[in-house]
Amino acid sequence: MKKAAIIMGSDSDLNALRPAMDTLKALEIPFAVRVISAHRTPEAAAHFAKSAQDEGFGVIIAAAGKAAHLAGALAANTILPVVGIPMKSSTLDGLDALLSTVQMPSGMPVATVAIDGAANAALLAAQIIALSDEALSKRLADYRAAQTARVLEKDAAIFREYSSL
Amino acid sequence: MKKAAIIMGSDSDLNALRPAMDTLKALEIPFAVRVISAHRTPEAAAHFAKSAQDEGFGVIIAAAGKAAHLAGALAANTILPVVGIPMKSSTLDGLDALLSTVQMPSGMPVATVAIDGAANAALLAAQIIALSDEALSKRLADYRAAQTARVLEKDAAIFREYSSL
Amino acid sequence: MKKAAIIMGSDSDLNALRPAMDTLKALEIPFAVRVISAHRTPEAAAHFAKSAQDEGFGVIIAAAGKAAHLAGALAANTILPVVGIPMKSSTLDGLDALLSTVQMPSGMPVATVAIDGAANAALLAAQIIALSDEALSKRLADYRAAQTARVLEKDAAIFREYSSL
Amino acid sequence: MKKAAIIMGSDSDLNALRPAMDTLKALEIPFAVRVISAHRTPEAAAHFAKSAQDEGFGVIIAAAGKAAHLAGALAANTILPVVGIPMKSSTLDGLDALLSTVQMPSGMPVATVAIDGAANAALLAAQIIALSDEALSKRLADYRAAQTARVLEKDAAIFREYSSL
Amino acid sequence: MKKAAIIMGSDSDLNALRPAMDTLKALEIPFAVRVISAHRTPEAAAHFAKSAQDEGFGVIIAAAGKAAHLAGALAANTILPVVGIPMKSSTLDGLDALLSTVQMPSGMPVATVAIDGAANAALLAAQIIALSDEALSKRLADYRAAQTARVLEKDAAIFREYSSL
Amino acid sequence: MKKAAIIMGSDSDLNALRPAMDTLKALEIPFAVRVISAHRTPEAAAHFAKSAQDEGFGVIIAAAGKAAHLAGALAANTILPVVGIPMKSSTLDGLDALLSTVQMPSGMPVATVAIDGAANAALLAAQIIALSDEALSKRLADYRAAQTARVLEKDAAIFREYSSL
Amino acid sequence: MKKAAIIMGSDSDLNALRPAMDTLKALEIPFAVRVISAHRTPEAAAHFAKSAQDEGFGVIIAAAGKAAHLAGALAANTILPVVGIPMKSSTLDGLDALLSTVQMPSGMPVATVAIDGAANAALLAAQIIALSDEALSKRLADYRAAQTARVLEKDAAIFREYSSL
Amino acid sequence: MKKAAIIMGSDSDLNALRPAMDTLKALEIPFAVRVISAHRTPEAAAHFAKSAQDEGFGVIIAAAGKAAHLAGALAANTILPVVGIPMKSSTLDGLDALLSTVQMPSGMPVATVAIDGAANAALLAAQIIALSDEALSKRLADYRAAQTARVLEKDAAIFREYSSL
Repeated sequence: MKKAAIIMGSDSDLNALRPAMDTLKALEIPFAVRVISAHRTPEAAAHFAKSAQDEGFGVIIAAAGKAAHLAGALAANTILPVVGIPMKSSTLDGLDALLSTVQMPSGMPVATVAIDGAANAALLAAQIIALSDEALSKRLADYRAAQTARVLEKDAAIFREYSSL
Repeated sequence: MKKAAIIMGSDSDLNALRPAMDTLKALEIPFAVRVISAHRTPEAAAHFAKSAQDEGFGVIIAAAGKAAHLAGALAANTILPVVGIPMKSSTLDGLDALLSTVQMPSGMPVATVAIDGAANAALLAAQIIALSDEALSKRLADYRAAQTARVLEKDAAIFREYSSL
Repeated sequence: MKKAAIIMGSDSDLNALRPAMDTLKALEIPFAVRVISAHRTPEAAAHFAKSAQDEGFGVIIAAAGKAAHLAGALAANTILPVVGIPMKSSTLDGLDALLSTVQMPSGMPVATVAIDGAANAALLAAQIIALSDEALSKRLADYRAAQTARVLEKDAAIFREYSSL
Repeated sequence: MKKAAIIMGSDSDLNALRPAMDTLKALEIPFAVRVISAHRTPEAAAHFAKSAQDEGFGVIIAAAGKAAHLAGALAANTILPVVGIPMKSSTLDGLDALLSTVQMPSGMPVATVAIDGAANAALLAAQIIALSDEALSKRLADYRAAQTARVLEKDAAIFREYSSL
Repeated sequence: MKKAAIIMGSDSDLNALRPAMDTLKALEIPFAVRVISAHRTPEAAAHFAKSAQDEGFGVIIAAAGKAAHLAGALAANTILPVVGIPMKSSTLDGLDALLSTVQMPSGMPVATVAIDGAANAALLAAQIIALSDEALSKRLADYRAAQTARVLEKDAAIFREYSSL
Repeated sequence: MKKAAIIMGSDSDLNALRPAMDTLKALEIPFAVRVISAHRTPEAAAHFAKSAQDEGFGVIIAAAGKAAHLAGALAANTILPVVGIPMKSSTLDGLDALLSTVQMPSGMPVATVAIDGAANAALLAAQIIALSDEALSKRLADYRAAQTARVLEKDAAIFREYSSL
Repeated sequence: MKKAAIIMGSDSDLNALRPAMDTLKALEIPFAVRVISAHRTPEAAAHFAKSAQDEGFGVIIAAAGKAAHLAGALAANTILPVVGIPMKSSTLDGLDALLSTVQMPSGMPVATVAIDGAANAALLAAQIIALSDEALSKRLADYRAAQTARVLEKDAAIFREYSSL
Repeated sequence: MKKAAIIMGSDSDLNALRPAMDTLKALEIPFAVRVISAHRTPEAAAHFAKSAQDEGFGVIIAAAGKAAHLAGALAANTILPVVGIPMKSSTLDGLDALLSTVQMPSGMPVATVAIDGAANAALLAAQIIALSDEALSKRLADYRAAQTARVLEKDAAIFREYSSL
């Protein structure tokens, strides 16, 4: 099975990325967690991205804040899909990280999810890997069904308690 | 080989999506082009998304402007990866479409590319499909190499013509 | 009398919606409260909207945050007026929800109120229902008059206490 | 039948409001068109709003740009539903008008549609009036069906012409 | 001597306006403090503005948040200069109030100060009244000189304590 | 009679400021027009502001774009009221100039008008000077009345031509 | 060796600037710390900037919030490079200060760093001074290497603890 | 004399960078012009930055649009000062490029100038190089003086032609 990588630009993002780790675990996708900075360790970034495909990775999740170059710097060195998570880590509510991650120039896409969207990044990685893994595809469908069931339950409870009919 | 789908919310987006078609063609990925509106033809949207996996699609590209719900509406009905292209089609320069596409709630990711980023959406789709298609993977690597070569050529020409050294 | 519906995309919005419930109660408008997600329970959303008119609803209030598709998803399936409340539930102060709710494409309006504007959504629903309900129209006029009287009282008190004349 | 009113803050908005007039005509809703400025003719604004209900109006559509106070100024003087259209008429792409229209204080809602959303304002007015007018409700449903049919037609044509399958 | 008026749209702004009262007191300018809402008490707003000149007011300071119409509503009914203070009172950090206050249409200016800029509003009012009041002009010059002296003192202290020279 | 000054930071703003000159002329207020840059001619800026009161000026209108420091730089050197016009002269639609002009620190107000609001700047200057000039006050009231009359005329014409009643 | 200057517009910025002082100390660059306001002590600002080159300064760091004119006001009076730090000190998250600092008109640059970017301002000053100081250049390279080493260490630790491989 | 480098991320930025070339020429600073993309030719970017100091460069000017990573990617590989020019090249008016360039993480500064601020980037480079080059320092002072003289001339002409005194 293809592995996923979770790369953070700074270890201060670790806690915000736990939902990504939890989701990958729940879906039984093996993953590596790394701290690689596009600016402080640019050689590690290039090296990781260039060797990722051969190392068995299928998707790279990159999380960074402010002028968030990490996802783009990795994408520039691999043809694996790179999922970018813009992190809220400046005064600008993550808008800087969002634009720095999503507005990539033509020829070099980053699959961007919501600001601080760690769980969704993992789900997107799972959806990508599941294209060629039927068992994972089944687990994803179950995950979705459970999610739907939880909303339906809450709906029933809140309808009973709060409606004035 | 998995097919790609290009779904636009309005036929007024057709021209802005040509780079997506051209890129898929260049990479020899078969694709369908559809006009499906999350708001005007919601049943078509749900139907397409629900049957896409069985129809042989591997990735869905969804392009919409303003309160761009299309990518999310499709994502809600499939576990295939959905790539969202926010289109500039209001007075707000595409910022409304970007936020409506990327800020998806936890549990339902959309892989968002840049505003009007049609070519990148196609490349991302190709990168995803290439995970389980070695020939496509090779074509993607060639595409990248050609892209790099073009920049290096321009660099040499401009260096010679404009430097004052 | 026409009923109102308060639909929230997530039960985490429940407390922020209490002013809507309180206002509808004060104006004696019967209402249902539901948790329906455009993305996690899209079929429930379509089903509710399609049957709302026949179920005796006159207005649907839909509250959602981030890429807030709920109001639009409901509007796409009914000709009842849909009032959208953009909820502040991301790092972006509700701006994402506002644009996702208000910037609807031509042909499918959502009557959008202020970010977190639960009370106003209820008042707007009341104003709409009151068009064909004279008793409610009278209660609304009284509600307004009481509101005006409260401001006038505060004005008198603050004028006396703080003016330096 | 209840009448609609289209109020513009400046006659420079006349052309941008034609889709509202066309839509009301198509739906056979009688309407008045007025130029009333919250700032240049505040007395006319108050007078119109106060007498609108007695004059047989059911909904007031108010369009203004920049610091767009018109919809709020009318809403302050009537309990009829007021639909606000933020007009793009400054350098700020209509964002100023949007916030000035939608961010109304608690107690005084304005039903805001998209920037320059004249057609949607008329449709929303029609949906509101249709609550107590079954013939109009039928015309609205037909309008929707025709709109859906047009998208389905375009979908079929574009699918045939552009798909590479 | 001309009086100043401090008008707030809601008594929740009272504390944020204390610096305006303190500044007017320090400069010995008599002032009235009022709670008048453009939307909840529009008649009081029109009445106050229309009679302000005759009542001996020279400047009106108007503070409001969100879709801040108060300053504009007063300006529409008087030729006295109106100073607008955009208040931070929504989730949008006061940006909505700033645009609603400053982006007035041609023909109807509001002299806008910074978000939550109560002290500056009072100083601006004083500068305006001082044009025809030499004693106040002298007090303003002294106020400025004291302000400058305080910065110079801090400069000297911090230079000594923190420089590494 | 007090004079007004119109200071522009760059002569490229000249045409955009003609409405200010026209309005001052219409109101018979004498005025000087100057090109003074806070950054390119800082000494001229300080000199002008320091001597303005003695030279018989009553109000200074300052227009600048981008990082618009001109109004603040003048305000720092005079206790005359300074009216700031943020000019749209960069790619950012004047938002940079607006924030640079209006967000002045406590102690140093600038009376800011709308982006490119030249006519309103002149009207505000007139309202300020009119406080101690009854004849000007009368001319201002007439100017307002004529403005109101023009809107009422347009209202009547458009009502007749476009209403469907 | 050239000295650096750290100028703050208000002593309330002192704590936010400590990383600048710490960085300059670590790199053994002598520096002065001053409180100089573009608006409250404009003469001190002009005087400091005009004499800075002769006093042995090589770079001026200027930190200010809101309508942050300080860096520009200093730049207008010296040809030394001026580094601007936009401070978050209003409700607008520092966006006002960023635009007021970076959007300087042609002819008068300010080298702007991130909002609240005190450490980076000091590093940039060091990089500039190091151009003509080999020993400092060596210290900067060591500083960078240590920074890289710290990230590599964290990477190794987090990889071991959190990867699921 | 130290050389300057002008690096553009795409040759489509060539014309917008001519003012930088013209300014460097006017100041007699030798310069290289290159097309290097952080994403399409990342190895060329790293190679150029690593060898720039040894090649005799003193300052690197980097211009890029959208998710503008170029300046940061160069800064990560050199301790030379890097001047970043955010280019307006997307629908977002250059705001994306501005935030991607200026909001660099602690430890890795980029000296950012205004959007499309090519001339200022060259002037800033000149100011930096002039620190250790007295002849250039003299040319810069002359450049400034000429700039001031041009404004003073325009001031005199416009004062005479447009004032109503």
